[in-house]
Amino acid sequence: MKRTDLSELECPIARSVDDLGDWWSLMILRDALDGIRRFDEFAEDLPIAPGMLSRRLRTLVDKGLLEKRRYSERPPRDEYVLTARGRSAQTVVLALLAWGNAELAPEDRFVTLRDLDTGREIEPVMTDAASGTPVARMRLHAAPGPAASAPTRERFARLDERRRARRAQRRGGTDVRTDH
Amino acid sequence: MKRTDLSELECPIARSVDDLGDWWSLMILRDALDGIRRFDEFAEDLPIAPGMLSRRLRTLVDKGLLEKRRYSERPPRDEYVLTARGRSAQTVVLALLAWGNAELAPEDRFVTLRDLDTGREIEPVMTDAASGTPVARMRLHAAPGPAASAPTRERFARLDERRRARRAQRRGGTDVRTDH
Repeated sequence: MKRTDLSELECPIARSVDDLGDWWSLMILRDALDGIRRFDEFAEDLPIAPGMLSRRLRTLVDKGLLEKRRYSERPPRDEYVLTARGRSAQTVVLALLAWGNAELAPEDRFVTLRDLDTGREIEPVMTDAASGTPVARMRLHAAPGPAASAPTRERFARLDERRRARRAQRRGGTDVRTDH
Repeated sequence: MKRTDLSELECPIARSVDDLGDWWSLMILRDALDGIRRFDEFAEDLPIAPGMLSRRLRTLVDKGLLEKRRYSERPPRDEYVLTARGRSAQTVVLALLAWGNAELAPEDRFVTLRDLDTGREIEPVMTDAASGTPVARMRLHAAPGPAASAPTRERFARLDERRRARRAQRRGGTDVRTDH
């Protein structure tokens, strides 16, 4: 199993999911992105037991997504503020929001996203930074990066081979050399 | 707790995370987006017990993200193909990939994303569909949609109020009426 375990360790998707943690951690992150900072505010907003909320907040601090900031000396009270890394998880939260909304007709949506300055509704779309093309219209594949280990490279080689084989099959058994 | 439970039910982020399921379901979805379709292929790629893999595949079929397609009658064998809804979860998987990669220098990345046609490396960025502006550069807020229940509207009213109070505090206690 070592091979696959290692390639999971190198998978940025697997690593992100590990960092974000469970369902509750994501809800806490959503709340933080919505401007919630204090323990009592999180506790008011989420139906979560206080002990569980404490543990999740601590984990998010340990992972570098939130940082504690003292806002009262007497009594000593901390608030939880997003780090740059935590703020950048907005892209994941928005992808979840957009994907959840996509299966509902506009009039059936419970939550929308708005530009705070203009009030205009925003539809978040994942695009290619260089061309601005929505990725859904492109043919993409994951490929080994510069730091990929041999097992990760082998995994991608298997995926490429399978893709080639499927394409050849669709064309009636003729593999085309110029094909990817 | 009823209030908060209901507003969680209406949160598209919470609902998406529920649909995607756990870590393993996301890895299966990643594999399906990478072109993997057959039980043995998933089993080869993921360090997961066969019974667990079966259950996760069945859940993904039940949730409408994968569909079974018979590819051999004798012996009877099915493959698991992404539905349109499953394919559209690509945006979530790419957001996780981009966020995972963002904390690594380019030379330290294990996995990159490429255009299958040109081989060019793609950097996925979440943008506003109407203007093409990256959402990270905008000030966004979630707001109640047309189908929002009273508890969800109240939740957002509380968030708005908190945001206004914080802004007023930063300005030394002066609340500005034209402010959002």
